[in-house]
Amino acid sequence: MTRIDIPEGSLFGLDNLPYGVFSVGDSAPRVGVRVGDSVVDLAAALGEDVFARPSLNAFMAQGHQWWVQVRERITALVGGEVPEAAVFAVEEVTMHLPVEVGDYVDFYASEHHASNLGRLFRPNAEPLMPNWKHLPVGYHGRAGTVVVSGTDIVRPCGQRKAPDEDTPSFGACRRLDIEAELGFLVGTGSPLGAGIGTGEFATHVFGAVLVNDWSARDIQAWEYVPLGPFLGKSFATSISPWVVPLLALEAARVPTPVQDPAPLPHLRDTEPWGLDIELSVAWNEQEVAQPPYREMYWSPAQMLAHMTSNGASTRTGDLYASGTISGPDKRQRGAFIELTWGGAEPVTVDGEQRSFLLDGDTVAITATAPTGTGRLGFGEVRGRVLPAEGDGAAPIR
Amino acid sequence: MTRIDIPEGSLFGLDNLPYGVFSVGDSAPRVGVRVGDSVVDLAAALGEDVFARPSLNAFMAQGHQWWVQVRERITALVGGEVPEAAVFAVEEVTMHLPVEVGDYVDFYASEHHASNLGRLFRPNAEPLMPNWKHLPVGYHGRAGTVVVSGTDIVRPCGQRKAPDEDTPSFGACRRLDIEAELGFLVGTGSPLGAGIGTGEFATHVFGAVLVNDWSARDIQAWEYVPLGPFLGKSFATSISPWVVPLLALEAARVPTPVQDPAPLPHLRDTEPWGLDIELSVAWNEQEVAQPPYREMYWSPAQMLAHMTSNGASTRTGDLYASGTISGPDKRQRGAFIELTWGGAEPVTVDGEQRSFLLDGDTVAITATAPTGTGRLGFGEVRGRVLPAEGDGAAPIR
Repeated sequence: MTRIDIPEGSLFGLDNLPYGVFSVGDSAPRVGVRVGDSVVDLAAALGEDVFARPSLNAFMAQGHQWWVQVRERITALVGGEVPEAAVFAVEEVTMHLPVEVGDYVDFYASEHHASNLGRLFRPNAEPLMPNWKHLPVGYHGRAGTVVVSGTDIVRPCGQRKAPDEDTPSFGACRRLDIEAELGFLVGTGSPLGAGIGTGEFATHVFGAVLVNDWSARDIQAWEYVPLGPFLGKSFATSISPWVVPLLALEAARVPTPVQDPAPLPHLRDTEPWGLDIELSVAWNEQEVAQPPYREMYWSPAQMLAHMTSNGASTRTGDLYASGTISGPDKRQRGAFIELTWGGAEPVTVDGEQRSFLLDGDTVAITATAPTGTGRLGFGEVRGRVLPAEGDGAAPIR
Repeated sequence: MTRIDIPEGSLFGLDNLPYGVFSVGDSAPRVGVRVGDSVVDLAAALGEDVFARPSLNAFMAQGHQWWVQVRERITALVGGEVPEAAVFAVEEVTMHLPVEVGDYVDFYASEHHASNLGRLFRPNAEPLMPNWKHLPVGYHGRAGTVVVSGTDIVRPCGQRKAPDEDTPSFGACRRLDIEAELGFLVGTGSPLGAGIGTGEFATHVFGAVLVNDWSARDIQAWEYVPLGPFLGKSFATSISPWVVPLLALEAARVPTPVQDPAPLPHLRDTEPWGLDIELSVAWNEQEVAQPPYREMYWSPAQMLAHMTSNGASTRTGDLYASGTISGPDKRQRGAFIELTWGGAEPVTVDGEQRSFLLDGDTVAITATAPTGTGRLGFGEVRGRVLPAEGDGAAPIR
């Protein structure tokens, strides 16, 4: 037996306890919990078969009461002695996609982001569409291309047509961007015909991850009318490997910004589900933005209520993301297209003026939240850009 | 042993042989093939474990050579004597969803439909967007709400705002519609970073089904800017239970309509994959439209090439649908919003003037294709509308 050392000020203390799927060497992927700089093998430590699986789905499907109970057992376990064979150093494990994703939905819940994108994509119109303050706008993304942090991102090819070009051409994306988001994982689903009220959010949603919704802005701008983003987004969406349980985010809960007009009754939050989470975006290891999640107009409880208000069913493993997190200040913008105003106001990275991603660039998004006595961490979602395969023209700096 | 009787003129002759998942009484769902008015249990008849599954996925994943070989074995089998215990009458079986759906994508590949919808949704603008003739426009739908034919459709609730209303309200959909489409099932997927060329279509796509993409037009019209349809579609998408193998559609292949401008090289069809399939739409058992698939501007090979041209991976069970099939004539329109021109030109059903679906209405879509010597059938995709759950206002006739 061994005691797990938690370094002073660790973002993975006993009030965090995020779940992930890990392997060591050639061993089968299984569920672990992160404590300090250690990963505890839960099947080995708790003797529960539900953790000897390559995804969190079976555990998440067991429901809220189990989530509470298992969290109590883990807290008791790691506060005492743990079988040595169940403990690994975080450096020696490989992390995998934590869930088998059902459907993936991406929202658009930051007023600052939606206004900025509206100004950039539709310069001669009102930045916010008439529906925006009445419902959390969202759309379905590609579940099959959700990848775990660390997966290399091949620059996508696609059709682009710049405003000054007469016809589109096919080639490598010239305006490769990121979107720093928070993602929510449905633990227990809901049947066809039954909505999930805002008050039922915490019994259905298991936890949260960081999301980088990589975006090919030139492909997106050409394709997105009238049916929305498709290939500009579907080449890859990266998520962080550690799922922070909603149970760990109690101290981070804050009201959303004032919603005016008041939402229709089915979208009213019965309790605050804004979240005071601070993100950080690093471009080639240099911090370029600090998006504040507390600025998000729509809460994740409202997103889920909206998504199911037409009777759509949900499944264990469904992922829905917030959309880009942007605050009112320039340094709080979670997408490069906003941060550099479409390339008009570049930022300095590696001593160079930069607007979009070059081959070889790395982006890492991290986040922390208050726990009452300190802070907890989400870990990171990281990705490196590899050159396009095929006949791309040179990307824009 | 028994011989299977195929009635003269059956749409399920030896040149069709569609696959589905069936059960009898309380028995476990398993894969069968339809021959005449019989269903042959393939695990029992061929002794292959891959058919003793509740979906076609494992069989589809085996790949094109297997599909060819199994089709030959089935042809030989049902041409001779079949074990009696492996044969059921079509009336005694229950059909299930034939596949476990991966991602679901819906295209918009009919020029007539896209033009009509453009005129109806954006009356003061060009009906076709500038991108439409350069790429097959599409978007992701909700895979988790794809249901098998026969599943009742609960009228969805949602936010609607009519043009003459100042603010949106929440209630039952007032303009519930259908979209008659053809869906294509990916049998063998493709890895991240690798596209599927138009010439590889037939080795990746296993077969086709009929699709009814139920659409709540009032919800859709309010929500769809700028990120596309979401709740107006995600409450249910019905598919027919019998998957017609692509191998059965050789005689139905025709060139697409002339594509002008010529598609970019990666979207050029190397061989014709237009399909001469005749659909029929029945509203309360009365035929109201005959959409011709041969009129579709983009071929399914082009759709798949486009969908993967950015490096997006595909998986066994991915479903992509054509979008509403509409021809140039009014009676060829595969959505009621087009057929009745947004309600301005109602059709007569049950002796009444009708534009959108009422509670209790039934829609059945069927289709046939030439085989060289006769015709084959797709069976049908059928659904009945049940009243909304919740506080809906009266729907519009």
